[in-house]
Order: sequence, then structure tokens, then C-alpha cells
Amino acid sequence: MLIHHLYSGGKDSSLAAWMLTRVGYDVELVTISFGLLDNWRFARETAERLGFEHRVLYLPREVLERAADMAIKDGYPNNAIQFVHERALEAIAAMSEVERVSDGTRRDDRVPFLDLPKARSLEDRFNVAYIRPLLGLGYKTIRELTERLFVIEIKESEELKKADYEVELRHLLRERGIDPLKIFPNSHYQSRVLGWKEKPV
Amino acid sequence: MLIHHLYSGGKDSSLAAWMLTRVGYDVELVTISFGLLDNWRFARETAERLGFEHRVLYLPREVLERAADMAIKDGYPNNAIQFVHERALEAIAAMSEVERVSDGTRRDDRVPFLDLPKARSLEDRFNVAYIRPLLGLGYKTIRELTERLFVIEIKESEELKKADYEVELRHLLRERGIDPLKIFPNSHYQSRVLGWKEKPV
Repeated sequence: MLIHHLYSGGKDSSLAAWMLTRVGYDVELVTISFGLLDNWRFARETAERLGFEHRVLYLPREVLERAADMAIKDGYPNNAIQFVHERALEAIAAMSEVERVSDGTRRDDRVPFLDLPKARSLEDRFNVAYIRPLLGLGYKTIRELTERLFVIEIKESEELKKADYEVELRHLLRERGIDPLKIFPNSHYQSRVLGWKEKPV
Repeated sequence: MLIHHLYSGGKDSSLAAWMLTRVGYDVELVTISFGLLDNWRFARETAERLGFEHRVLYLPREVLERAADMAIKDGYPNNAIQFVHERALEAIAAMSEVERVSDGTRRDDRVPFLDLPKARSLEDRFNVAYIRPLLGLGYKTIRELTERLFVIEIKESEELKKADYEVELRHLLRERGIDPLKIFPNSHYQSRVLGWKEKPV
């Protein structure tokens, strides 16, 4: 049972990937890039340390340009992040060999998040199963599991070596002469997994 | 990491229990009874076949009486089932030794289902983590996993030897002279797990 898992190298998507392996899936990690930066390499590095197969999927730059338009118009990044996440899931689901798609979105996330009609629409349009291992978990549970499993680096988004598409979005905003800190929250901590803390159960 | 898992012996709650063990939890199954019938024994039997610890938690008959009132007033069982489920989760969460509560509710369930405010309220009021392993899974995925894992018996609810609280609710309706088939959908298939199909991964 092969599953293609949207992967940033962060603790949520790493935990979700591990949980999928524990219930019998063969997990291939997929990191999205728009080709502006090579920050997908951070996800590759973490994937290798955790022992997962990993590939990069390039999305058209136009998707990121449109997300930047949205972020600038709104003055905050939520709709832009949601937009990119939906396009990322669709791009994975559209690959001919893909039967199952997953991500690390959580119960307590506001964005990115697919509500029930959107989740079912993704499944129906692309004839895939969409699986979110963390959807039924609160922050306490996610903290409990990730602290047991992973060595984690937590920094502000601007400093962290991350493969999140947020990094390329910030870069594009800077290219357009806009300070990302005017759009993204100032103190926005994000995580990157550096490796296993203990041998998983 | 001990977790108390609301358990009926059906495929959903059995799958969820197995998933919890796979990510490192020690699972104790808890079946609710109102003391009208001893149908909790079917859950006990399945729990033993699957190798789980199991206990019965008795809820006051008044809870079931009130649920019956709701089902009769509404003419359908949804609000009654939801009511009993919430009281069941609260009763487990209220036990002094309980730090984590879980159930087998799914993404595609309408009832029983705790929306985000209700899930957080349960966690906050009782200082527990509430975990739903199946919340991020659609019916395709649940079918794929349960068919691989379990020998399952599927019958109409009226015939099935089950430990669902629906069975006692139907019984109480009959005691009051009301035909449950006038309230519950006529063709309502439910499942009971008879054992492992293959040695789990």
C-alpha cells in the first residue's frame, strides 16, 4: 500500500509519515518546490536521516505568483498558504501512479486545512484516498509523540532552514520589494526535524 | 502512555485501538453499559480475541432514559446517539486515572461526532487528551485497513450480537412499547469483529 505524503521536514509532516508506516503503508515523501530556491534540500536531508524515500515535485511558478498576489491583497498569508496547499495536494493526486495522498495537517490548524467537502472533492476528482493521520490529534498528543520520537530544531520562520512552501513565498515577496514581516506574523515559530531521538517502537 | 478507548467490538473502534498500539500507546478498552442487557460481553469477547485489556463502565440508566426520550420526540436516533456518546466520553474522562481518551469516530460520520469546540471542551474540562485515530481517514482507507486486519461479521443492527449502546437503547424503546424500527433506519448494517485476519504488521 504505497502512499504519497506531502512533506516539509517539519515535526507534523514527519510524525504523520511515521504513523503511516506504523499502520502498514509504504511512504514516499513528496516536497513541493517552485524552483525559486533549493530549500527542498532540507526536507531531503531530514527524509534521509529518518530513512524515507523522497522526491521533489515542481509546481508552476504561476501558482506561487498568484499566492503572493493573495497575500499582498489580504495583508496576511492564510488564504495564500491555503491556496498553495490545495494546489500541492492536487498536483500529487494527479500523478498517474498515485492512489493515496496524505499530509500532516492537524485538528487545531486553521490553515492549511481541507474541510469535509474539499477533502471528498479531492478524493473524487482524482480517484485517490486522502489520509490525514494527525487530524484526530490535539496539540498535547502531537507534542507527546514528537518529543518522544524526534530531535527537533525550533526557530522563527525567517531563520529556519525549512522546505515549507512558505519560504519561497517569502522570497517572492522580497523579490517584489515587499517585506514578508509585514504579511507574516512577526513571531512565528516553526520546527524542523533533525533525526530520531530514540529507535521508534 | 496509557489510553482509555471507547469500544463496541465493531470494526471502527477495533481499528482505532490497533492504530493506537502501533504508535506506542498502551490501550485499555472501555465498553459502556447501562445494566439493562449484558451485550457488553460481545465486546469483551472480541477484546480477548484481539488481545486487549477490557473493562466495562456502567452509566446511570437515567442517561439512557433521556436518550430514549430524545429519540421518541425526534422520530430518529441521531441526537440520542450523540447524547449518549458525549456522556460516555465524559464518564471515561472523569475517571481519576485517565489522561487520554479515544474513540473510533470517523471523518465521514455525522453522529456520533464531536466538533472542534466540543472536542476541546472535553479536553479542557477533564484535563485529558482526546484522540481520534480515524478522524483523518475516509471510508476507502478504513475499508482497506479493516479488510486486511480483521475477520468481520456484518449484519443488520437488529440481528447483530453487538456491544454498541444502540442495542440497549433499542431494548429500552421496546420496554416502553415502541418499535425501534420506527425510529432506527430499517436497513442499518453494522459490523462486529470476530478476530485477526492476519498477524498485524
